[in-house]
Amino acid sequence: MFTTVVTTRLNEALGLVYSSKESVIAALECNRGVYYSRSRAALWRKGDTSGHYQNLHRIDIDCDADALRFTVTQRGKDVKAFCHLNDLTCWGKPTGFRGLEETLAKRMKDAPVGSYTKRLFNDPVLLRNKLVEEAQELSECVSRQHGAEEMADVLYFAMVKAATLGVTLDDVAVELDKRDRKVTRRKGDSKEDRIKAADAILKK
Amino acid sequence: MFTTVVTTRLNEALGLVYSSKESVIAALECNRGVYYSRSRAALWRKGDTSGHYQNLHRIDIDCDADALRFTVTQRGKDVKAFCHLNDLTCWGKPTGFRGLEETLAKRMKDAPVGSYTKRLFNDPVLLRNKLVEEAQELSECVSRQHGAEEMADVLYFAMVKAATLGVTLDDVAVELDKRDRKVTRRKGDSKEDRIKAADAILKK
Repeated sequence: MFTTVVTTRLNEALGLVYSSKESVIAALECNRGVYYSRSRAALWRKGDTSGHYQNLHRIDIDCDADALRFTVTQRGKDVKAFCHLNDLTCWGKPTGFRGLEETLAKRMKDAPVGSYTKRLFNDPVLLRNKLVEEAQELSECVSRQHGAEEMADVLYFAMVKAATLGVTLDDVAVELDKRDRKVTRRKGDSKEDRIKAADAILKK
Repeated sequence: MFTTVVTTRLNEALGLVYSSKESVIAALECNRGVYYSRSRAALWRKGDTSGHYQNLHRIDIDCDADALRFTVTQRGKDVKAFCHLNDLTCWGKPTGFRGLEETLAKRMKDAPVGSYTKRLFNDPVLLRNKLVEEAQELSECVSRQHGAEEMADVLYFAMVKAATLGVTLDDVAVELDKRDRKVTRRKGDSKEDRIKAADAILKK
């Protein structure tokens, strides 16, 4: 029996479960989160009754070979909940980057009156101008605290845009990992034509 | 005895350990990661011998009250390693956002010849132009795959800037959570003067 931490592709802990040799084989065979339920003394293919199933990406064993990590994408009809209390994690609602992603997903469905995020969803020009403006402000930072604040701003506006496209944090992580596996990066000088295009937009 | 997952402020799983009532009290008393070592049958204040200690931010208990989550900042002299194999996690080197952060930290210390990241560290104007340009490109995306790629670009250049300021992903998460606790957000129209400043820079 292996203690198993279930994580997202960003390695965020969703909860702890148990695995047996049989449940690991079953998980690999159907590419889903399958575990061993100690209370039922049986294999447990997560989501079969709740609808909150998981696509399995990889299984890793830890440094002393007694704890597994399942990397999954948590699925669900209305909410993405690993926990039986309908939260993403067994330790409650997510905070940080994932908390922001969840808040934006909610605002997409049903925003309160006067929601600034909703205004951004409905006004692509405002969203574009704010994102470019915050990128600029981050670039000018010279202190750590100010840098953290401006990074949070850039992330907020970038994730509002991502939400409109259905892009998740996990999609971005996958993209970064693809590049990390390449030996060489495309070397980017800043592009004259892109700068002119930005000029034109920012001048409006 | 509680199975305990140790995570960063972004909820990334560093590894699994065990806690006793006594180790939890000790952890809270000294604001450090303190656990129960089953092999030594004794309290274990992580880092006392390795130097890889942890600042403790919070302890949460899971939905069925049998697994703890310790949220910590992992510290270390040279590397930030939770694992005795000198990796951040017990399942190997981090990928995704944290993998990028580690790569950038390495490039700050010692970059290979021809490193594009090093060039960005040394050329704040190029870095600024690229970040503004990628923010622009993200804004224009209409497909999910392209959006994920442009988000990865924005994140890469923003994190290069963050690295130069010593800003970590955890700092950004803390900033986002501060804002989430506020009832109202500052409503940002795009600022005329900032747009003009961006113009001036992009025209050069």
